[in-house]
Amino acid sequence: MKIVVLAGGLGGSRFARALAEAIAPRELTIVGNVGDDIEVHGLHVSPDLDTILYTLTSRLDEERGWGRREETWAALETAAELGAETWFRLGDRDLGLHLARTERLRRGEPLSSVTRSLATAFGLEPQLLPATDDRLRTWLTTPAGEFPFQEWFVARRHRDEVDAVRFEGEDEARAAPGVLQALEEADLIAIAPSNPYVSIGPILAVAEIRSALEQRRVPAVAVSPLIGGKAVRGPADRMLARMAGGTGPAQVTGCYKGLIDALVIDEADAGQPAGVPTIVTRTLMNDAEARSRLANAVLDAAGAPA
Amino acid sequence: MKIVVLAGGLGGSRFARALAEAIAPRELTIVGNVGDDIEVHGLHVSPDLDTILYTLTSRLDEERGWGRREETWAALETAAELGAETWFRLGDRDLGLHLARTERLRRGEPLSSVTRSLATAFGLEPQLLPATDDRLRTWLTTPAGEFPFQEWFVARRHRDEVDAVRFEGEDEARAAPGVLQALEEADLIAIAPSNPYVSIGPILAVAEIRSALEQRRVPAVAVSPLIGGKAVRGPADRMLARMAGGTGPAQVTGCYKGLIDALVIDEADAGQPAGVPTIVTRTLMNDAEARSRLANAVLDAAGAPA
Repeated sequence: MKIVVLAGGLGGSRFARALAEAIAPRELTIVGNVGDDIEVHGLHVSPDLDTILYTLTSRLDEERGWGRREETWAALETAAELGAETWFRLGDRDLGLHLARTERLRRGEPLSSVTRSLATAFGLEPQLLPATDDRLRTWLTTPAGEFPFQEWFVARRHRDEVDAVRFEGEDEARAAPGVLQALEEADLIAIAPSNPYVSIGPILAVAEIRSALEQRRVPAVAVSPLIGGKAVRGPADRMLARMAGGTGPAQVTGCYKGLIDALVIDEADAGQPAGVPTIVTRTLMNDAEARSRLANAVLDAAGAPA
Repeated sequence: MKIVVLAGGLGGSRFARALAEAIAPRELTIVGNVGDDIEVHGLHVSPDLDTILYTLTSRLDEERGWGRREETWAALETAAELGAETWFRLGDRDLGLHLARTERLRRGEPLSSVTRSLATAFGLEPQLLPATDDRLRTWLTTPAGEFPFQEWFVARRHRDEVDAVRFEGEDEARAAPGVLQALEEADLIAIAPSNPYVSIGPILAVAEIRSALEQRRVPAVAVSPLIGGKAVRGPADRMLARMAGGTGPAQVTGCYKGLIDALVIDEADAGQPAGVPTIVTRTLMNDAEARSRLANAVLDAAGAPA
């Protein structure tokens, strides 16, 4: 049973972990969002790939929801003392990863190859692929102006309402090596309960990936990031309300038009129109049992007609 | 009494500290070597400027002779775990400074301005200026090939004999803002007991600085980095032996032909030909008293005819 999952940050990584616990981990390919990658003081940071890597190798600070556990902050404290911008929080161990990644990228190695090396060194079992090796960056149009993703999300704490999302570089971005093959060989394609606009959106902005999903011969199932019309974390509900006109299953499905065969929704959202068949379960992944329940609900969908 | 000192790394910083303790620190301008600057994993590191900054603000790890005291190494340990090159040792607090510097350089701020900000934040009293804001890099020709400075010095532990030194960018390098003015206003110009080839050489490779020294109207005094014909630290003695044919005062003076009026030498080297008047004292700066003795020997030279 080979599965490909499209994933963003925290929700994506928790769902990827749920799948990796439910099947043989090496059968799982995680295609990660790179639209929120950022250069911080010269270092290339891939927040979503890192959150996935940290989560699936038990390195994530679960309480904080990003970065490494048992982290120290000496570098950032010094940078702050010296007047540097420190709204993008980089722990010392986290920095070590960015140093290693940046070194290889500067030698001309593509992000997918760098990511494979980092993942191998950290003992990650599933295959982790960036959606693209090309430069793809998410920009948000808001009443306060247009912002790059991290500036809006972290520096401005996503307080601005979003009117539109665009992906710089989407016309040129090719799927990273391995992505199309994994999609071709998959028995099931899953979309994680990540923000449809800013976590999954940049992955689907890669034309080759969108096209592979449109032409799929296997079931594709998305997990709604909403519980009772609310996002577990982050601004997905506010974005759906403003840009799709609501926070029900139908609005989530609307983001994946023609790309999914079923939507997994939480019990709290049952009974609402969804536009595709729904699978109702409890979607909050707060422990191993909850992860297993959700993973199995998605795996059941593999039997559904494509 | 305004003094300008040309300085490299450890010897330069210790001598600059000696001068700063002997006069009003704000009367001192330190012109630092940037020929051994390096980009490490995307970060701009200025090892000599940093050693000076750390030494004069009591942040240097005195035992190690580089980097910060009370340093931690979480980032480097992680980078090593991930297969990154770690021969250039970056501590966590040290990294914080490189992050702050790189951020400003990437915004287009010149190194001199960045250095001023960092120095102010760390409470440095003397003026610290890079010799140049332009890219100037030291290369060593050795029997094993040509190497950039840090690769030869750190990665290869300066084991290769040096046949020639060249400075990439020297034809275009202009003196950094403030350097020529400081030289113009100085009552005394001092050359620190740093390696003449790789610490002072890159400063003098900036034509405007060399020319200002040639046309000086005040005394210029160098302190020999040798004690009994041996370098206190590093390869200066081996380089002088091979490229200048000896390790006496005359060989040191030969590196500063037309640029100095006197040479301060250690008692152990007294009586040997020097080519310029010598000032004999004890030059090892192992405590405050020793620093004071050396600084005063140099200050006495301010009375000497230019």
